[in-house]
Amino acid sequence: MKKVVVLGHGTVGSGVVELVERNKEYLMDKYQQEFAITGILVRNLEKHLGKGKDHLLTDSFENLLEQKPDIAVEVMGGIQPARTYVKTLLDLGVSVVTANKDLIAEHGLELLQAAQAGGAVLHFEASVGGGIPVIKPFRESLKGNRIRSIIGIMNGTTNFILSKMYDEDLSYGESLRLAQDAGFAEADPTSDVKGYDAARKLAILSSIAFDKAISWQHMGCEGVQDVQPFDVANARAVHCKIKLLAIALRSGHNIHCSVRPALVDKHSFLGHIDGENNAIEIEGDAVGKVMFTGAGAGKLPTASAVYGDLLDVLSEKANGILPLNSDVDYQLIPYYNAPTQWLVRLRVNHIQDTVDLILSSFSDHSLQLHHLNSKDNLFFLVDTEDERQLLQKLAPLQGSSSVEELRHFLIYR
Amino acid sequence: MKKVVVLGHGTVGSGVVELVERNKEYLMDKYQQEFAITGILVRNLEKHLGKGKDHLLTDSFENLLEQKPDIAVEVMGGIQPARTYVKTLLDLGVSVVTANKDLIAEHGLELLQAAQAGGAVLHFEASVGGGIPVIKPFRESLKGNRIRSIIGIMNGTTNFILSKMYDEDLSYGESLRLAQDAGFAEADPTSDVKGYDAARKLAILSSIAFDKAISWQHMGCEGVQDVQPFDVANARAVHCKIKLLAIALRSGHNIHCSVRPALVDKHSFLGHIDGENNAIEIEGDAVGKVMFTGAGAGKLPTASAVYGDLLDVLSEKANGILPLNSDVDYQLIPYYNAPTQWLVRLRVNHIQDTVDLILSSFSDHSLQLHHLNSKDNLFFLVDTEDERQLLQKLAPLQGSSSVEELRHFLIYR
Repeated sequence: MKKVVVLGHGTVGSGVVELVERNKEYLMDKYQQEFAITGILVRNLEKHLGKGKDHLLTDSFENLLEQKPDIAVEVMGGIQPARTYVKTLLDLGVSVVTANKDLIAEHGLELLQAAQAGGAVLHFEASVGGGIPVIKPFRESLKGNRIRSIIGIMNGTTNFILSKMYDEDLSYGESLRLAQDAGFAEADPTSDVKGYDAARKLAILSSIAFDKAISWQHMGCEGVQDVQPFDVANARAVHCKIKLLAIALRSGHNIHCSVRPALVDKHSFLGHIDGENNAIEIEGDAVGKVMFTGAGAGKLPTASAVYGDLLDVLSEKANGILPLNSDVDYQLIPYYNAPTQWLVRLRVNHIQDTVDLILSSFSDHSLQLHHLNSKDNLFFLVDTEDERQLLQKLAPLQGSSSVEELRHFLIYR
Repeated sequence: MKKVVVLGHGTVGSGVVELVERNKEYLMDKYQQEFAITGILVRNLEKHLGKGKDHLLTDSFENLLEQKPDIAVEVMGGIQPARTYVKTLLDLGVSVVTANKDLIAEHGLELLQAAQAGGAVLHFEASVGGGIPVIKPFRESLKGNRIRSIIGIMNGTTNFILSKMYDEDLSYGESLRLAQDAGFAEADPTSDVKGYDAARKLAILSSIAFDKAISWQHMGCEGVQDVQPFDVANARAVHCKIKLLAIALRSGHNIHCSVRPALVDKHSFLGHIDGENNAIEIEGDAVGKVMFTGAGAGKLPTASAVYGDLLDVLSEKANGILPLNSDVDYQLIPYYNAPTQWLVRLRVNHIQDTVDLILSSFSDHSLQLHHLNSKDNLFFLVDTEDERQLLQKLAPLQGSSSVEELRHFLIYR
């Protein structure tokens, strides 16, 4: 029998308790094992009373420790006090399964080291992609590969918002309210809509992929809050949708990591990932491209990932090697470092001057100029070697008095 | 240092050797470990001489055993002598990694039992989906789920053929020749085009999913060889493509497993899996639907899966529990046991009589009748509770002298 304590009893926590109970008989039959949940840590006891778990609830972390648990499931979210609790548990040799992406993105290296020193393991499959198995395939199945790129839709809230903007011609604000009404967005949606949540997940995956602790704060990170209805219309005009992409791309010793609204062909794989779904495409030098999709969040999907990690602890699977180094010789670069197409949209006060500027700046590139509906809004498509080349070519436009506003979107096909 | 022997030196075998060499330094750096390939078993020595591996080649299995290997990679394919070799190795406690779907589908249970008895492990990730991690996510990450369904495109050759028929309006024969020219089909393509290859892969996955050894010979298995250009045209008329689907569906104690050409919406996920790609969609009661896609075969993709398995052996991951039982109380049923839509196509010698028959047989269903191009070819779409209900309703048509030929296709959306 393995004594399991659960830190947190919100949506995911109660999902974990439900799955543990649902699989009790199966686990005994097949593994001759049992997970016994001996305690659930909550902040506010009264809020959780009367849900059939009163005998397990405690608001004291010390009480949990006194139970000498074998495994702890951390599903409180947030950095503190989760960090202190998880660190304490690992130091004591208690293995931890967590769904907390903020914690792993910020302090993953420290905690993995603590696990190794304490003789415990730390698993965090649920921290990226909800129930979609992605961390384990990455850490284990694809280890024979050098990873070239990770491209994904890693945040369900913003994907829901962007889908509503596209499908129902709504504004960002209207779509956000729908997401909140549907329970897909928090009352304070900052972390989702500004791209921080996706950036943290990308930091976790790219740290594993590139053997280097990559901090999400060092990535370019644009959210969806400035995506305008005419951006959606522009994308539609070129058969694309806007998606909040998390991108990690290695080229030699350069790694580009960013989260940004980008265009994807509406008939491509990523163009079909709508609503609250997630998708992660990984390209390795041996395997080529593989893609994982599914629900990126939710009570039971996330609990499914936690349960898989619990079984890994049971079978005493080691963490293997720390996937995070700091001394690997990679450089994080701010621009997208591969050939691609861009959509550049401009609001202008003098169309002809602007078009002349565009044509002269991109004289050696082939362009597709579009001029839709309103007279001061135009956009063009252009291919460049990388984002730096694009930015150089755009500089004269940025500085021109004919151009009031300019924004570029990556097109991923 | 782990001594590794490789049985077979075809495409996949040489890919495995390449990946082992490519990752040598990395493995030493990160794991302080080394895979040393000490022998490669081939049938015909002369055929493989002069490729830089002459010192490793042997045509004697006994020679390999004398090297006292730690791990054997079996990539010979076929049942014999692979079965005898793998069994012998496992009995001796040598762990085996295999890419051999025929062997696992036919003798997986026996070999897993031999591994357990011998204190060895047997891994076979590469046997399904090439480099796409699917067996491990299934056996480990999704274990908290009761699996409801597995739907997949599991054979790249037939998918290539069907894509050519759809994209270029070719006949089955013309498309098969293109597949053979492109190296996607064997000189004798029977196992692929008749669906046996997909059925074996489905047997492996559904045995794991449902905890019961399911034999591919007990499944319904239709190949692609009878798919006609007008079937493709009919599908196109209702915005679908024809795909060879491998289907496993549990409902209570009934399991339906089949391989069959079926229609999928061309804008759906599966509708975008073209050419030699594979896709596997799994629905679990906790995780919902997750989908894995990528190249389903090929030298390095398959070697990538083998390499992941090698690392699993290195970290001494146990097989866990045998995923195969025979005493689980499930019944294999021949008909698709869930509500769905069907396309029924008929060749008739009397249109009006046939239409009357259809309308009377399906009087309580809503129908979409299509009559395209040729005067003796019609098809209709209808929803039924399951395949049995459809077959009952079709019986009067099957028996009618107005109908010369009748075939039904499942539509999976």
